[in-house]
Amino acid sequence: MSEQLAGAMYPEDLRELVDAELGRLDFSAQPAAAGLEGAMRYSLLAGGKRVRPVLVLATARSLAADPSRYLPVAVAIELIHTYSLIHDDLPAMDDDELRRGMPTAHVKFGEDVAILSGDGLFAEAIRIFCSQPGEPARVLAALGELTAATGVTGMVGGQYVDVAGKAADAEALRSLHALKTGRLIAAAVSVALTLEGLAEPETIPYRRFADELGVLFQIVDDILDVTGSDEQLGKPHGSDERHGKLTYVSLFGLERARELAASSHAKAIAALAEAGGETGDLRGVADYIFTRNE
Amino acid sequence: MSEQLAGAMYPEDLRELVDAELGRLDFSAQPAAAGLEGAMRYSLLAGGKRVRPVLVLATARSLAADPSRYLPVAVAIELIHTYSLIHDDLPAMDDDELRRGMPTAHVKFGEDVAILSGDGLFAEAIRIFCSQPGEPARVLAALGELTAATGVTGMVGGQYVDVAGKAADAEALRSLHALKTGRLIAAAVSVALTLEGLAEPETIPYRRFADELGVLFQIVDDILDVTGSDEQLGKPHGSDERHGKLTYVSLFGLERARELAASSHAKAIAALAEAGGETGDLRGVADYIFTRNE
Repeated sequence: MSEQLAGAMYPEDLRELVDAELGRLDFSAQPAAAGLEGAMRYSLLAGGKRVRPVLVLATARSLAADPSRYLPVAVAIELIHTYSLIHDDLPAMDDDELRRGMPTAHVKFGEDVAILSGDGLFAEAIRIFCSQPGEPARVLAALGELTAATGVTGMVGGQYVDVAGKAADAEALRSLHALKTGRLIAAAVSVALTLEGLAEPETIPYRRFADELGVLFQIVDDILDVTGSDEQLGKPHGSDERHGKLTYVSLFGLERARELAASSHAKAIAALAEAGGETGDLRGVADYIFTRNE
Repeated sequence: MSEQLAGAMYPEDLRELVDAELGRLDFSAQPAAAGLEGAMRYSLLAGGKRVRPVLVLATARSLAADPSRYLPVAVAIELIHTYSLIHDDLPAMDDDELRRGMPTAHVKFGEDVAILSGDGLFAEAIRIFCSQPGEPARVLAALGELTAATGVTGMVGGQYVDVAGKAADAEALRSLHALKTGRLIAAAVSVALTLEGLAEPETIPYRRFADELGVLFQIVDDILDVTGSDEQLGKPHGSDERHGKLTYVSLFGLERARELAASSHAKAIAALAEAGGETGDLRGVADYIFTRNE
């Protein structure tokens, strides 16, 4: 339990595994599509904490599995996350020009290439997921979970509710983010459980942890949009307000939003304690999400 | 395109199976996302011959398998085809306002919802594919083939070469269409071979048939863009020329393009003869693609 003593440390070794694997990806042998591949890499290798793939690997490690074994699934989820950012940034969507301090894909490469680089990342994500070693029935079940979390009942559905401006109260806000952000974060944990074949009852505390983590992530995101500097965020802060978006801060005020974040973090940690296993790395991810300033 | 051929009939019974299954799809139980689901259905149920899913089922039947067994995979491929049409029609891409005589998705629902409905169809396609009954290892292998045909080394890569305007000669044109159109058509055949576990040597004539079918499809498409009426095409004809696109007609002239189509059709039929099995339905699809006027 020495990991839990260190507690708040983000599992940088897992992030390094992910970054190395992402750098190794080779999408195309076709010179004619080199520009497309370049655009995909531009967005994919822009850095970040790699929270979702690290969650896959940290969950695997908590179950005493070798994290490096799940790299295909982990990078697949990062590709899906990246594709969703590219499409969300488009002029027809959130119309954002900066991300992580760099021009967004459509600013850099044009809208057509940006759309296609998102589409390409999604397709390559599934292709890579299909190459995950292990029992095929489990891989297939895990992929079914992931795509359910990505589609109409998940990420894409949440983004639709967001652009359609249909979230009008606290319940709708929570539901929107549960779809748009929460489902993919939860899937990062649950695919590792499925791949390891964990018995259903044992998955329950992990799933509670993962669901809470999605909520925490979004509350902190909303707070940072108000309190963060442009430099820390890598984009102009206050964009939620400018877009007239309902957020945890606009709905509850900053102080109450901070309390909600603390309460959500505590719930996540409590769920983790019930999960048993070597959950130090998962704790490190939860602590990072709670305390991050970027 | 009115040559009197031995005239195998298009397998309308398989199309009806596909249409019935597509009509039954239910993407979301969430009222908030009903608008998104509506947009997805609008494009998906706009009709058409359902060439790709019918190819899946016709290939299954030629191997003496029950076609209805492969409906999940068949509709998954139609969802992917539909998503690609929605994204290709976007203002940033081909900027088309009509498809099959109806306003394109972005004209009807706005660009944001159109992009998301494409993303949603792609995710749902994979989710449905994962539900395909059968040996999991085969389902996973077939899905790997399909996504390779959909990504950078397939459909998306071809669309990139198209929008980047990089096709400058006959060889480049053939390569562009092999990626953009051919790979998905070929995958419709090959996933059925993989799911049935056909031995590699026996797949060779089927694969040659499928590759040739993709070429034939595109040549006829280019001819129809010049010779078809707006009504037959469901969109203004001559759009290739207006977009300054290199086509089989612009490159070789109408007469030579027709000869190329006839030669491609003959090669497809010859490959089919070598495949053995009950290939009447596959022949029907090839004849339709050769003689279609819409």
